[in-house]
Amino acid sequence: MPIGYTELPVLLPVGGVRLAAVAAGIRYPDRKDLVVIELAENSHCAAVFTRNAFCAAPVTVARQHLSLQSPRFMLINSGNANAGTGKRGLEDALASCRMLAQRTGCAPEQVLPFSTGVIGEPLPVERIDAALEGAVAQLSEHGWERAARAIMTTDTVAKGVSKTLELSGHPVVITGIAKGAGMIRPDMATMLAYITTDASVSVSALQGCLEGAVEGSFNRITVDGDTSTNDACVLVATGVSAAPLLDVGHADYQAFCDAIADVCRQLAQLIVRDAEGATKFVSICTEGGHDTQECLQVAYTVAQSPLVKTALYASDPNWGRILAAVGRAGLLDLDVDKVRIFLDEVCIVRDGGRAPEYREEDGQRVMDKDEIRIRIQLGRGGASETVWTSDLSEEYVRINAEYRS
Amino acid sequence: MPIGYTELPVLLPVGGVRLAAVAAGIRYPDRKDLVVIELAENSHCAAVFTRNAFCAAPVTVARQHLSLQSPRFMLINSGNANAGTGKRGLEDALASCRMLAQRTGCAPEQVLPFSTGVIGEPLPVERIDAALEGAVAQLSEHGWERAARAIMTTDTVAKGVSKTLELSGHPVVITGIAKGAGMIRPDMATMLAYITTDASVSVSALQGCLEGAVEGSFNRITVDGDTSTNDACVLVATGVSAAPLLDVGHADYQAFCDAIADVCRQLAQLIVRDAEGATKFVSICTEGGHDTQECLQVAYTVAQSPLVKTALYASDPNWGRILAAVGRAGLLDLDVDKVRIFLDEVCIVRDGGRAPEYREEDGQRVMDKDEIRIRIQLGRGGASETVWTSDLSEEYVRINAEYRS
Repeated sequence: MPIGYTELPVLLPVGGVRLAAVAAGIRYPDRKDLVVIELAENSHCAAVFTRNAFCAAPVTVARQHLSLQSPRFMLINSGNANAGTGKRGLEDALASCRMLAQRTGCAPEQVLPFSTGVIGEPLPVERIDAALEGAVAQLSEHGWERAARAIMTTDTVAKGVSKTLELSGHPVVITGIAKGAGMIRPDMATMLAYITTDASVSVSALQGCLEGAVEGSFNRITVDGDTSTNDACVLVATGVSAAPLLDVGHADYQAFCDAIADVCRQLAQLIVRDAEGATKFVSICTEGGHDTQECLQVAYTVAQSPLVKTALYASDPNWGRILAAVGRAGLLDLDVDKVRIFLDEVCIVRDGGRAPEYREEDGQRVMDKDEIRIRIQLGRGGASETVWTSDLSEEYVRINAEYRS
Repeated sequence: MPIGYTELPVLLPVGGVRLAAVAAGIRYPDRKDLVVIELAENSHCAAVFTRNAFCAAPVTVARQHLSLQSPRFMLINSGNANAGTGKRGLEDALASCRMLAQRTGCAPEQVLPFSTGVIGEPLPVERIDAALEGAVAQLSEHGWERAARAIMTTDTVAKGVSKTLELSGHPVVITGIAKGAGMIRPDMATMLAYITTDASVSVSALQGCLEGAVEGSFNRITVDGDTSTNDACVLVATGVSAAPLLDVGHADYQAFCDAIADVCRQLAQLIVRDAEGATKFVSICTEGGHDTQECLQVAYTVAQSPLVKTALYASDPNWGRILAAVGRAGLLDLDVDKVRIFLDEVCIVRDGGRAPEYREEDGQRVMDKDEIRIRIQLGRGGASETVWTSDLSEEYVRINAEYRS
């Protein structure tokens, strides 16, 4: 079970968005694995994609389609990543867009394809074709929960967040869903996430809002340091609400961005809470660095250290491993005598070694919790950054030795 | 059991080197955990140390002592790393040097201290003091095997290599021992290693020889990406043999360097073969890169990917994970259509995806072996590099959740 997350909250319908999830038999029989999301005409769309050089075929196609037309549909399958599939993979992704376009009367370029699952198997486009008819017939404003479930792979729970706010006195809704539990590392959104709103937002304002939100959320999480080939995060504003068009200069733009950032942060944290084999949710805060870059460098070195992660799994207040990870993070001229490290509020390291006042039982008390904050004060500047991660358990190894991603 | 390594070979005595190993009760009762290595007068000594900013107290002291005097003794304990111990740690390391100096009549600066084991516990210097008398009495040219065993921590086997060669017609011996099984990542020698020879080599030639050898051996291995606080690799030339003094310009210098490099490579590979929880010994070769740096970047990204490592553990020819790791290695302008990836001689990836001729049973045949070579051809230059690594098993997690390093 995910840490500190018991069940999917109610996901509010978003005006201008309809969803359907059906079983296409892509990898397993009788499992819903194909999602269609319909977007109102003239919706605005922003997106960020994986930076993996071997990006999947649907990522290439979705990028291209976005540059050509305003999208009307998103077509998402789980069970098959259509990655590492070369030229045929591109043809298959394009074919699946054409199939949905034919059934709905839009142009193929108005369909954005997304895939997640096993790498390197050909996408079974005939099965997708056969399932599309039923999917289109089932499109509903209330399809969010089913869609959130259908995009899961090794996730143990469906992940979604809804939020409402007022823009110029008009209520608007934001609903987002995401999937991801492994192959998670910050380099753009390391998973799939779809966030929609009925607010009206210009395309450039929407893209700026999404990039900022992703930077503080999906780009601040790591499970295993592996960046997937298929990551994508899409933000759609249908403009169906009565709220006026937001642009970057609008008085409400910041409030809107804050709300989107909050939804992204919640979704990103859900991914870590549901990380493969995870038993702890760990926030790692670096403070007092020269700049963002070195704060992240330290935080990620700690977050990705297998020795720190196994100590967290063992609930062992093994501050020596945290200290060793900070020491190897590669910071120039780090004055180790100025470094302080805390487990929650317990100071474990200062003056170049174990804090004199530190008592093992204080560290143990923190480590026994399932949500832990490791705070590293570098004592050399004003920058700070936080990343979120999980521990490393035998179960992680078992899942990834058995599952073929 | 280590992969492809059944037992310690006979370790040849080296003229001018005597060793003793005794039980000082540093962490466990009745376990040999203290080693003294005596070096002939006028021995030359080269060394490289960890680059971890939180380096251990003995590393600081050994560096300083080396800069002052030619060493007569090395004092090594397992069970306690004397790292993260602040000012008191430095005093303890110095005290242990004084204790051995008093018993042997040398200056304290002629003792190099080394520690390995748990981080952050005070070094029990009184117990070391009490054990030193017995150690000095037992010094013997035949103490190599006992010393190799006494420096072990989570190692399952003692690690050592001997080699002989002729320099200007005179036989010389090289014998080296090492310890290390976890917290292993390339950034200088991520472990302890002691290599000695009775050859006569100038200090500068010896340091150059060691740095070259370490770069191609201990700096080419990774188990978990964690750089220890205590790493050290020492090369001593006692000059006791009849061979003439080697300097950088000498006709035999290259042959000597090759022999040292070979010993270092064997010791480094032994560390990977004995990696915590390892079931596979994996060579990762990047070919056709622009330069060394990018070849290593790709090789280490693959070598440290938890998803690749768990697939190796499962003997799963999951080439998609290898491809994804190559793709996220951060190489600018990588043309994925030019990349080829091989498991031993089986081509698994070309033309941007799975090789058309690849058959799963061919990949499976390679994966079923316990020594595997992953070869990545980047197709954009003439540089190549190899690193050695292990897989990631549940046993690695178990060991590191239970052991307090």
